[in-house]
Amino acid sequence: MKTRIISGAVIAVVTAVLLILKGWVLFAACYLLSLMGVYEFFKGFRVMNINPCYPIAVGSITVLYGIAALGKNGVDFLRGDMSGWMMAWLFATVVACLLYLFKIEKRKPEDSMATITGIVYVGFFFYHLAAIGMLDGYSIFVWMVMITAFVTDTSAYFAGVFFGKHKMTPVISPKKTWEGAAGGVIGTIIVSGLFGLFFMNDHIVDCMIIGLIGAVISMFGDLTASIFKRKMGIKDYGNLIPGHGGILDRFDSVLFTAPVIYYYIVLVIGA
Amino acid sequence: MKTRIISGAVIAVVTAVLLILKGWVLFAACYLLSLMGVYEFFKGFRVMNINPCYPIAVGSITVLYGIAALGKNGVDFLRGDMSGWMMAWLFATVVACLLYLFKIEKRKPEDSMATITGIVYVGFFFYHLAAIGMLDGYSIFVWMVMITAFVTDTSAYFAGVFFGKHKMTPVISPKKTWEGAAGGVIGTIIVSGLFGLFFMNDHIVDCMIIGLIGAVISMFGDLTASIFKRKMGIKDYGNLIPGHGGILDRFDSVLFTAPVIYYYIVLVIGA
Repeated sequence: MKTRIISGAVIAVVTAVLLILKGWVLFAACYLLSLMGVYEFFKGFRVMNINPCYPIAVGSITVLYGIAALGKNGVDFLRGDMSGWMMAWLFATVVACLLYLFKIEKRKPEDSMATITGIVYVGFFFYHLAAIGMLDGYSIFVWMVMITAFVTDTSAYFAGVFFGKHKMTPVISPKKTWEGAAGGVIGTIIVSGLFGLFFMNDHIVDCMIIGLIGAVISMFGDLTASIFKRKMGIKDYGNLIPGHGGILDRFDSVLFTAPVIYYYIVLVIGA
Repeated sequence: MKTRIISGAVIAVVTAVLLILKGWVLFAACYLLSLMGVYEFFKGFRVMNINPCYPIAVGSITVLYGIAALGKNGVDFLRGDMSGWMMAWLFATVVACLLYLFKIEKRKPEDSMATITGIVYVGFFFYHLAAIGMLDGYSIFVWMVMITAFVTDTSAYFAGVFFGKHKMTPVISPKKTWEGAAGGVIGTIIVSGLFGLFFMNDHIVDCMIIGLIGAVISMFGDLTASIFKRKMGIKDYGNLIPGHGGILDRFDSVLFTAPVIYYYIVLVIGA
C-alpha cells in the first residue's frame, strides 16, 4: 500500500510537469509512452498465442510522430495540409501489417490484426494527447484529458464505497456499481466546471460538457482494458509502476478521453 | 469456361461504364461494393470461428461515405477541412469495434480485431477509388486504378505462360513465377504510358511511375487476398460472379492500387 501511494504520487508529479510543459516535451513523452504501451499490449497477446509484430508498430508510430513533427503548424497533421499524409499513414500501416502475413507458414491473420489494433488503439489514440498539447490557444485542455480520466476514477471509487448497491458489470469488473458510475460522472462535471471557472473562463460550459462525455468514455476505456486483460488471462499489462501495473493500466482511460477531447475542441469548438 | 468469359465481359462493360460516369455514380457503386466486399470477408472469418460484427461495418462505412458526401469539396474529406472528421471516424470506428467486446461471455478480441481490419482493408481502402473519381481535373486517373490492377494480372499471366520458369511464391500461389511478375510490371508500364500519351499528355511520366508502383502493389494485393483465403480455408470469397468468385476475388488488387494512386495524385502530383 505504501509503495502504491509513493509511486502514485511520483506519477502524479511527473504527469503534472509534462502537462505544464506541454508542446514538444509532452509530444516526446507521448511517443515513448506509446511505444511502451504497445509493447505491453502485444505481450498480453502472446499469452493468447497471438504474435503481433512489434517492429512494424515501432516503425508506424515513429512515422506518425515523425510526419507530425515535420508537418506544417507544428504537429497538427490530423487536419489541414498534412491530413493527406495521415490517411496515407493509415493505409501504409495496414498494408505493412498485411504483408507481415507473407511468411505464411509461420504467421496467421490474428497476428496481423492484433498489430493493426495495437497501433491504432494505443499509438493513434494516445497521439491525440500530444496533438492537444500543440493546439494554439487550446493546449491547456490537456488537463481536461487527465481530469476526465482520473477524477472519474476517483469519484466513482468513493461514490461506490458510500452508495454502491447495484452491480454494473458483474462479469467484466465486479466491483463497479451504477451508483459509483453516477458519482464518477457528477464528480467529473463539477471538477471540470471548476477548472473552466479558474483557467478557461470562456469555455466553462464546454468544460462541463467535456466532463460529462469524457467521464462516460473514460469508464468505457477502463472496461475495454479490463476485457482485454481478462481475455488475455493477465491481471495487469505490466509492472513498471510499483502498485499500479504498467503504462496501459494507468492510461487505459486516457486512450479514450484524449481523442474525444481533441475532436470536441477541433470539430465542436472549432479551434 | 464459356460462363467465365461471358461474365468477365459483363464485368468489364459495367466497370467501364462506371469509370466513364465517375463522380456520384462511381461513388454509390463503391459504397455498395464495399458493403458486399466486407460481407464476403467476414463470411470467410466465420469459417475460422472468428465472428466479426457486420452491422458495425455497415454503420462505419455508411458514415464514411455519408460524411464524404456531406463534406465540402464534394467528397474529398481525406484532406482539407473535412479531414478532422476522417480521423474522428477512425477513432469512433475502432471504439465501436472494441465496445463490441462488452458482451464478454460471447465475444473474443479476434472478433473485434477482424471487424476493424475488414472496415479498414475493404471499406477504407476501396473508398479511395470513389475519392479519385471526385478529384477535380484528375478523375480520369480512375482508369489507372484498373490498368494497374488488371493489366498487371493479364500480362503477368501471358508472360508466365511463355517465359515462366522460377517460382515466386510456391506456398502462397504456386503458379506465379518471377518471369510472370516481371512481364506484369513491364506490360503495365507500357499500357500506362500509352494511356498517358492518349489521355493525359501532361502526365505521361507520372502514369508510367504509377504503372510501375501500381503493378508491384497490385501483386501484393492479389497475394494478400490469397493468404487470407488460404488461412480461412476457402477457395473463393464468394460466387457472385460466375467463374470469377466474389467481389473481393475480382477487386483484391484494386484495394491496394486505388489508395496508392490516390496518394500519388494528392501528395506527389499535388492535386
